[in-house]
Amino acid sequence: MPGSGKDTLSQAIKERGFKVIVMSEVLKERYAKEALPGERLMDFAFRMRRERGRGFVAELTLEKLDPKDKVVVINGVRNWEEVEVFRRVGETVIITIHSSPKTRYERLIKRGRAEDKKYEDLAKRDFEELQMGIGNVIAMADYVLTNEGDVEGFIRRGIELVEKVSRDP
Amino acid sequence: MPGSGKDTLSQAIKERGFKVIVMSEVLKERYAKEALPGERLMDFAFRMRRERGRGFVAELTLEKLDPKDKVVVINGVRNWEEVEVFRRVGETVIITIHSSPKTRYERLIKRGRAEDKKYEDLAKRDFEELQMGIGNVIAMADYVLTNEGDVEGFIRRGIELVEKVSRDP
Repeated sequence: MPGSGKDTLSQAIKERGFKVIVMSEVLKERYAKEALPGERLMDFAFRMRRERGRGFVAELTLEKLDPKDKVVVINGVRNWEEVEVFRRVGETVIITIHSSPKTRYERLIKRGRAEDKKYEDLAKRDFEELQMGIGNVIAMADYVLTNEGDVEGFIRRGIELVEKVSRDP
Repeated sequence: MPGSGKDTLSQAIKERGFKVIVMSEVLKERYAKEALPGERLMDFAFRMRRERGRGFVAELTLEKLDPKDKVVVINGVRNWEEVEVFRRVGETVIITIHSSPKTRYERLIKRGRAEDKKYEDLAKRDFEELQMGIGNVIAMADYVLTNEGDVEGFIRRGIELVEKVSRDP
């Protein structure tokens, strides 16, 4: 969910030497080429999944894999069909990050994006994400990391978990 | 989700002296009176929510509240509209319990219900629960408790959390 800390952790995991693919970056590459005039990224994401299948962004992500890759960390799964795409090509472990809405909204407001100023707007954006089916992925996760305050502790637990899982999925 | 340990914790919370309402019990009372011949409880639950509104079981649950109640623990919210029903009448804090599918399926198989024998069937039942919208509630939870092994530790953390939240929601 927005503001949970997944990009912070994903960056730290990358710095630790893991190959990390950020699905929103993969989507943005396609958005740059194919978006309709004035189309928001979120609307483009919905359209792609509607027109090309709910697993489409995962399929684009597969193109970034190398046959030599042993462990790849993928940031930003949005629905269960994407999980199934990854399961077709290898052992797939789902790690979800949980922060309460209150914590997430405070972070997003602190980040100071103009569009992120009001709790109601942030909740609205949450429900937009949920419409994609991300709640199902969260409910079916193999591991959950909480991120309520201590960022360093969160990153440490996150890296430990990824290292453990990459040894023994 | 089935096998996460919510009923175990809910029972322990009740023994600790909290008022606990189990929404599936509230639903079963109605099921006993109004189910169609041969209708499964799950199908009845879907039909009630379709015919009487997605917040219907929460509205039935409100009838169990007493104006004198200060803190009530409600076990078994299934969708976001139910949360909104509870929010209309009081401060509402969502606690979700996370166990991995693997852990939950092992528990359900150990419980030895005849219908719970195969991983595929258990996953199918999970997706039936998810269709109700429970993933959204899990994603938007205020707190998450993990329950992967040590039951006593889980119950202790659960009771501590409920006591903390009931003092300071």
